[in-house]
Amino acid sequence: MLYGGDYNPEQWPRDVWKHDMRLLREASINEVTLNVFSWAALQPDEHTYDFSRLDDIVALVSEYGMNIIMATSTGALPAWMSLKYPDAERVDFDGRKHRHGARQNACPNSPTYRHYAAELASRLAERYGSLSNLEAWHISNEYEGICYCPNCARTYRDWLRARYGSVEHLNAVWGTDFWGHTYDSFDHIYPPDRAGDGSYDGPCAVLPAASLDYARFFDDSIIDAYNVEKKAIRRFDAQTPVTTNFMGNFYQYDYQHWAKDIDIAAWDCYPRLGTPASDTAFWHDLIRCLKRKPFLLMEQTPSRMNWMPYNALKRPGQMRQQSWQAIAHGADSVQFFQMRRSRYGCEKFHGAVIDADGTNKTRTFQEVAALGRELAEVGPLIEGSMPKARVAIIFDWSSWRGLRNAIGPSNDLDYLREARAMYAELYRRNIAVDVVGVGADFSAYDLVLAPALYIVSDADAARLNDYVRQGGTLVLTVMSALSDEHDVLHQGFTPAPFHETAGVWAMETDALAPDHTVPLHFADSSDQTDCAVQDASTEQTDYAARVLCDILVSEEGTQVLATYGEGPFYAGKPAITGHRSGEGVCYYAGAFLNGPAMREFLGIVLAEAGIPTVNTNAGVSINTRYTADGEALTFIINDTDEPRTVTMPRSGTDLLAAGTPATLKAGATAQLPPFGVMLLR
Amino acid sequence: MLYGGDYNPEQWPRDVWKHDMRLLREASINEVTLNVFSWAALQPDEHTYDFSRLDDIVALVSEYGMNIIMATSTGALPAWMSLKYPDAERVDFDGRKHRHGARQNACPNSPTYRHYAAELASRLAERYGSLSNLEAWHISNEYEGICYCPNCARTYRDWLRARYGSVEHLNAVWGTDFWGHTYDSFDHIYPPDRAGDGSYDGPCAVLPAASLDYARFFDDSIIDAYNVEKKAIRRFDAQTPVTTNFMGNFYQYDYQHWAKDIDIAAWDCYPRLGTPASDTAFWHDLIRCLKRKPFLLMEQTPSRMNWMPYNALKRPGQMRQQSWQAIAHGADSVQFFQMRRSRYGCEKFHGAVIDADGTNKTRTFQEVAALGRELAEVGPLIEGSMPKARVAIIFDWSSWRGLRNAIGPSNDLDYLREARAMYAELYRRNIAVDVVGVGADFSAYDLVLAPALYIVSDADAARLNDYVRQGGTLVLTVMSALSDEHDVLHQGFTPAPFHETAGVWAMETDALAPDHTVPLHFADSSDQTDCAVQDASTEQTDYAARVLCDILVSEEGTQVLATYGEGPFYAGKPAITGHRSGEGVCYYAGAFLNGPAMREFLGIVLAEAGIPTVNTNAGVSINTRYTADGEALTFIINDTDEPRTVTMPRSGTDLLAAGTPATLKAGATAQLPPFGVMLLR
Amino acid sequence: MLYGGDYNPEQWPRDVWKHDMRLLREASINEVTLNVFSWAALQPDEHTYDFSRLDDIVALVSEYGMNIIMATSTGALPAWMSLKYPDAERVDFDGRKHRHGARQNACPNSPTYRHYAAELASRLAERYGSLSNLEAWHISNEYEGICYCPNCARTYRDWLRARYGSVEHLNAVWGTDFWGHTYDSFDHIYPPDRAGDGSYDGPCAVLPAASLDYARFFDDSIIDAYNVEKKAIRRFDAQTPVTTNFMGNFYQYDYQHWAKDIDIAAWDCYPRLGTPASDTAFWHDLIRCLKRKPFLLMEQTPSRMNWMPYNALKRPGQMRQQSWQAIAHGADSVQFFQMRRSRYGCEKFHGAVIDADGTNKTRTFQEVAALGRELAEVGPLIEGSMPKARVAIIFDWSSWRGLRNAIGPSNDLDYLREARAMYAELYRRNIAVDVVGVGADFSAYDLVLAPALYIVSDADAARLNDYVRQGGTLVLTVMSALSDEHDVLHQGFTPAPFHETAGVWAMETDALAPDHTVPLHFADSSDQTDCAVQDASTEQTDYAARVLCDILVSEEGTQVLATYGEGPFYAGKPAITGHRSGEGVCYYAGAFLNGPAMREFLGIVLAEAGIPTVNTNAGVSINTRYTADGEALTFIINDTDEPRTVTMPRSGTDLLAAGTPATLKAGATAQLPPFGVMLLR
Repeated sequence: MLYGGDYNPEQWPRDVWKHDMRLLREASINEVTLNVFSWAALQPDEHTYDFSRLDDIVALVSEYGMNIIMATSTGALPAWMSLKYPDAERVDFDGRKHRHGARQNACPNSPTYRHYAAELASRLAERYGSLSNLEAWHISNEYEGICYCPNCARTYRDWLRARYGSVEHLNAVWGTDFWGHTYDSFDHIYPPDRAGDGSYDGPCAVLPAASLDYARFFDDSIIDAYNVEKKAIRRFDAQTPVTTNFMGNFYQYDYQHWAKDIDIAAWDCYPRLGTPASDTAFWHDLIRCLKRKPFLLMEQTPSRMNWMPYNALKRPGQMRQQSWQAIAHGADSVQFFQMRRSRYGCEKFHGAVIDADGTNKTRTFQEVAALGRELAEVGPLIEGSMPKARVAIIFDWSSWRGLRNAIGPSNDLDYLREARAMYAELYRRNIAVDVVGVGADFSAYDLVLAPALYIVSDADAARLNDYVRQGGTLVLTVMSALSDEHDVLHQGFTPAPFHETAGVWAMETDALAPDHTVPLHFADSSDQTDCAVQDASTEQTDYAARVLCDILVSEEGTQVLATYGEGPFYAGKPAITGHRSGEGVCYYAGAFLNGPAMREFLGIVLAEAGIPTVNTNAGVSINTRYTADGEALTFIINDTDEPRTVTMPRSGTDLLAAGTPATLKAGATAQLPPFGVMLLR
Repeated sequence: MLYGGDYNPEQWPRDVWKHDMRLLREASINEVTLNVFSWAALQPDEHTYDFSRLDDIVALVSEYGMNIIMATSTGALPAWMSLKYPDAERVDFDGRKHRHGARQNACPNSPTYRHYAAELASRLAERYGSLSNLEAWHISNEYEGICYCPNCARTYRDWLRARYGSVEHLNAVWGTDFWGHTYDSFDHIYPPDRAGDGSYDGPCAVLPAASLDYARFFDDSIIDAYNVEKKAIRRFDAQTPVTTNFMGNFYQYDYQHWAKDIDIAAWDCYPRLGTPASDTAFWHDLIRCLKRKPFLLMEQTPSRMNWMPYNALKRPGQMRQQSWQAIAHGADSVQFFQMRRSRYGCEKFHGAVIDADGTNKTRTFQEVAALGRELAEVGPLIEGSMPKARVAIIFDWSSWRGLRNAIGPSNDLDYLREARAMYAELYRRNIAVDVVGVGADFSAYDLVLAPALYIVSDADAARLNDYVRQGGTLVLTVMSALSDEHDVLHQGFTPAPFHETAGVWAMETDALAPDHTVPLHFADSSDQTDCAVQDASTEQTDYAARVLCDILVSEEGTQVLATYGEGPFYAGKPAITGHRSGEGVCYYAGAFLNGPAMREFLGIVLAEAGIPTVNTNAGVSINTRYTADGEALTFIINDTDEPRTVTMPRSGTDLLAAGTPATLKAGATAQLPPFGVMLLR
Repeated sequence: MLYGGDYNPEQWPRDVWKHDMRLLREASINEVTLNVFSWAALQPDEHTYDFSRLDDIVALVSEYGMNIIMATSTGALPAWMSLKYPDAERVDFDGRKHRHGARQNACPNSPTYRHYAAELASRLAERYGSLSNLEAWHISNEYEGICYCPNCARTYRDWLRARYGSVEHLNAVWGTDFWGHTYDSFDHIYPPDRAGDGSYDGPCAVLPAASLDYARFFDDSIIDAYNVEKKAIRRFDAQTPVTTNFMGNFYQYDYQHWAKDIDIAAWDCYPRLGTPASDTAFWHDLIRCLKRKPFLLMEQTPSRMNWMPYNALKRPGQMRQQSWQAIAHGADSVQFFQMRRSRYGCEKFHGAVIDADGTNKTRTFQEVAALGRELAEVGPLIEGSMPKARVAIIFDWSSWRGLRNAIGPSNDLDYLREARAMYAELYRRNIAVDVVGVGADFSAYDLVLAPALYIVSDADAARLNDYVRQGGTLVLTVMSALSDEHDVLHQGFTPAPFHETAGVWAMETDALAPDHTVPLHFADSSDQTDCAVQDASTEQTDYAARVLCDILVSEEGTQVLATYGEGPFYAGKPAITGHRSGEGVCYYAGAFLNGPAMREFLGIVLAEAGIPTVNTNAGVSINTRYTADGEALTFIINDTDEPRTVTMPRSGTDLLAAGTPATLKAGATAQLPPFGVMLLR
């Protein structure tokens, strides 16, 4: 199992390199990611390339037996390129041409940038592609940002022409009769920047269809730029996996769309002070489902970040717990940013395996080394194994963007939060989940949840309706299925594409004032009491609706699971319904739910779908990966900084136990220290 | 009485049109506002006009017996015009040239824009001006925003030349010796944008006189642009009223200045979650006084807005209550944005009479239809009648702008809030109020209130001093009469122009820390106890000063009505005074007052002015309109979502009662349901 | 002693001038600062100068016996210059070229600006340099702001060439290998604006060394522009002191660096509502130490500011108290902004000696006149005397800027606040303090405090280490000595340059969540109880660490003064240490301390350093100035708005007592009224 991360020897005198190698080996580090930001050094001017320093670095790390992930260094332009070829730099939302600075500063549609990026990537591949210790190519680094320059405007128009054929068709789809935005020519269309239809500050969109298209166009632009480099690498290296490091909770690029072009999924995981463990797990599951195979945990901090408002230290054991959580959800690597702390630059307060003291004496180094020993021992057993899930949550970039673009109905509407709120309840119940796109094949799942799936095409809706009719269970919520793939409202009784399947009409939607909730009353559901036994906060009176409340009209034959309580004019009216359709069931939650209500609601749904909860004490999570030959590896993790008692969900040997491991029986109890981890075989 | 609103069939396939017509007629809708945003469609390029679709729409709505308010569609430029003639687009405060986007994007001083706007308006007038069902012309839509472009700079210089004659005179009036801003030429003067004297973020002004002049210049620019269209219409239609829809609480344009050029006042009324009923009534009264005749309630939402942070639904009955409130204050129409909910665009979450389901089954549709039946019955009786007021509040755009431009004395100083705080107490007492400009004829009023009337010219001050001497009652407050019409401080004992009339000197002014108040003690005023009987929060100890406290020196003969209490160094000194001048009285409130103090203060003032309070339970408001032949129509409205008991202020028949209405006797009690309305004849 | 301030007769008709002169003389005003903002009037075009009005003003104030501080009027460009020579105006961080507006609008590197500023200054010096009542030259006014224009870019490159010689050297020092920022040429380097490396909003820096260099370059730019005028003056006036008015809490320019070029230090003092008296005193002490001689209190408001969010009036006596506080800390003048309140401009709500009423009847005028009488009497005795301090606090602009530029470790890290928190405890103890730069000569001090001295060069560290070894006492804290003079991290055991001297290793640093603290436990220190007797809030359990907590590893022989208490994983570990090195001691506080902990910590330090506390009741401060012949003048000031009892710290006569002053014995008690002041001789 890869254990390592970003190493920047370019920033150090050479006498430090060997010192570092010895320390890293002491910590069982077996991989370094090199060459992340060296374009200006590798290509000091338009005609000169100089790989001598990188050659020396590669030679040294190879000599020390390290594997290499080789970055292409294209994440920041050389100053000479920005200044000589301004088309290579971005123009921001405010119309400002950038000059040179920071990183992720290239316009992905710049011919200059593409030309030189491909040239550099191919030279790197030619030079290092046959290294036996080359594990992967890492293109650019943490792609981010949007460009609004003339390159992009031109390319966008071509993209629109290809998509719509005629401007009349575009006018019809975008609904440009709104506010007199009718276009007479593709040439009249520009990126939605502040000088145009991005007139309201930030992400609000005058023409939602246009803004959604620009986001999709920009997906394609970034992916094309990535593929330009990938193709250049493939000229000299046909086999080594090619990837880039995705980021968490990142709406700018649709990673599900990008997934086809990466060989192995990889992401950088930076939970902040107070991030719930389930939020991190949600993104692990999403990343794993991109390729439906194990992924790389490509970056995490060994101790602290620096770019948060309050950069608390990871507590003793916490880095290990977070590493094992990633593995439990499908990671096949543990990698850090960074191997050695920078002396310069805006990340000099960021944690590292080796600190400014250059020693092995720090707590951080010792914890990294201890985890390294563990991984060296059990890693090979885990690699390649995968979780299995009967439940899928649909997470959809178009819905995310559509709701971000929307003006109304509530400032407190947050797609990611609502998706994660539903996930959190499944996480609490230790139910394996796949987080998938709306285009996924759902036939393998017993339950599909579509929280706030605001945008659904007719085709996808048809597939989901079929899924239910053939026996599946589908959960919709308020804000689900309002718009089609162009963010144009479906016409009919909301949720129009699911009106028959859900058996309910959301006649209107109330937005609650900040911090206001509406109580909910559940119909008797005594068979669900087992779902909530371990949490004291589950009194019925706590059930509440948050943010938005549909006023529902339920059709005949629709079961009302919960009604609104005292307060608004719709008290007593249905809030949550269930409806049989064919062989399956479609549930509709007309409001976002607070914790207790989510618990009760999903308790009902899961029971009817026959999906068992694995009860644990609060903060203990259980996940299982299955090896190719069917062996189950069960990860029991204490996500908290307090000791926890855990009941063994199965029998097995704890591979992480100190000394000679004894076999633990199913149903026996064991103690987990703060952030403790067990791995049952 | 007009009952209808914006309808955008351009956004729909034609088969929808007839369906909508049938539904609208079912709801007793008798008017639609057409052609609000279709310029790009009507004029697809510089040389082509195409009215065929609009012809069809007009024919259909006419066939269904609807009246038409015809908009000119000039609220958003066609893309081709913006792109070919960039002078037509605005430059914003930050100096950014806009390209094409959103709406209200035209520079009102652009020759291109004026040329084509006039051309379009005249063609519309030529084509539709003789329609028998044409009720009014609606120019542009919700004018808003300021431009800082070279067109505007040039026109501004001409405007200044005409106003000041010489740059020396301008220097003297503007006080450009401040910070070395002396100008040698009109050509050195630019709009006060961020690159110039708008250097502090937002509306603060380095040279207040210059910023005030730019606001006035921009008033004239927008009004001129409006008049260009009006004149073009008048070439073909000499009679149909011409108007545009004003907005609420809108400081950018001085509607009192604009009033001379509109034929009928119209505004769009969007109270938000929690807006007090009196705040809405304040603007109704202001709009009515623009033309001193009934106005149009040109837009309101039938259910929810979408552009508020939290877009709550109107409660059952609330849309009806708000409609009747508008009528009670002088509206002769009830109009909605919009007839049918958009599928596209940033208003697609805004409420409409017909929702995405296209049915008559929604609560909203049913309430609209019920109100339509009511209005069809009683509307004709009401049309043309007017309220009568003995009290005027002066509301002055120059004071509003001057205080917004000012740096200091307190961030919590808010002119509109202080004007409405005084209005709210009159509203609570069911006293009819005119909200008028400082140039109004005050002779008909028994009481004139000038809260924070910061800017007063010597001429207007003389007229107000005369008004008092001839028997009027005038109320001034802290911040009243500090500056002249150029926002230059009056010299003398503050309030200098009223020093003799008010008999008081505001020697200095303290600003209170946020959320701090200073207690007030009123001298014995037992004859006022009737003013506050129905509110439990009127204990003397609650009287308090807010935001700013003048330290007053009262002249001999001036009565001290209230003094400051414990706390600041001016405890025991006068806070509120009254002073006889000629036949009248001038009151001076040296601080902004909290609710109880405002109640006590105005209780004294009203009693001495002989203006009776009509007591009601909290949240019940009573207003009367008088028909041309003197008949009184009394509107009793429950502004709250709870039932209220009301004592009949007069005898009469409730025209809105179900079944056969019985005559109610004065003094009898009746029940008003939540948001209930009675109309006594 | 100078008593006066800014007077702007340019803004007034001439008949006002004489009226003002009489009033000012009545208030014992003996100085006016003239000609602060008149460039556009003095030079109406490129070739014309007109001093006639200024001649008249000078003649009149001279006739009335006033002294003059003559400003050069270069704080705001004439409009013609900005418009004809755009290079004279600034470009802001966002890349916007400014046109003309506000003030401090000149690019200090503009040849145009420098040429005309020198020309104006020399003409003023030629004309008025020999006036017998000329007290000082005042160049520009309240210099502020940063420019990012092409002039600056060019000059910056020259500055870098001179500093680094080669771009390779610059690359090495700046660490441009970070994020691929390697430069191939000085020509590739631009100011760090938003289009470049100021990519994160505000002051964060991608390359801290580059941003720090730009700040230093800009220091030099402004100082050069100042010196251009100074040199022009010196052509005609070799002797009159030349200065400019510095501002409080101002990070943009390094006043310690500028000090060599001013002849007398001067600053504008504007404490706001709620500013602790010690914060103001801190800056007085800093300003005094710039030249190590008495300074000018060049501006304060006599009553209220206008540019604060809430502009409260100074309470009766408060302006006097603040004036005497300045004098107690070394001021040899009391000056106001302004003599007469403006009618125009954005400061028209700012207080003045003469208000809009033009009278002597205001409270403000009366208080100004009373203070004038006092100063006229005792001023001559005080002038030239100086405080003596055994304690120095190091305040360092590079550390301030470095921490502002830094991303992490905590949003709550505020260098100025931490320096003032330490100062506040010394102020509370009535211990005289010098606030000095890191390059100061420390040999005269018994105690040197270096709170959060983040940036220390090896050379300065060596000097401080020597200082300790030779018997000095040094206090370091968390964040001290992390970076060298280029903001590059020192390598080694933190605080690396002081590792041996401090005897402690700060292995890692935890950032606390907002509003969180960590309890501290002090080892027994009973000999310190006298330090805290007069404050009830000194219970041991209140001791707490704030914002950041080092996890410390103390070396053998290091004394642990305090440990962390319950809560974090480092409970029980050292938080504060002391370590002997040679003849001295080095203390290290691993966290920022709350009030009680600071009290306890400095109690220990001061006791060991033999520096006595002078106990007073809370809010009473005692300071002493010593005349040239050694006489002690002791200022006893009640900083509060409540009466206070004070124990005489010495015997003496109160020179400010009304009537015939009696001698007060040391140890006797006296009453100080609110804001009361005694001056013991």
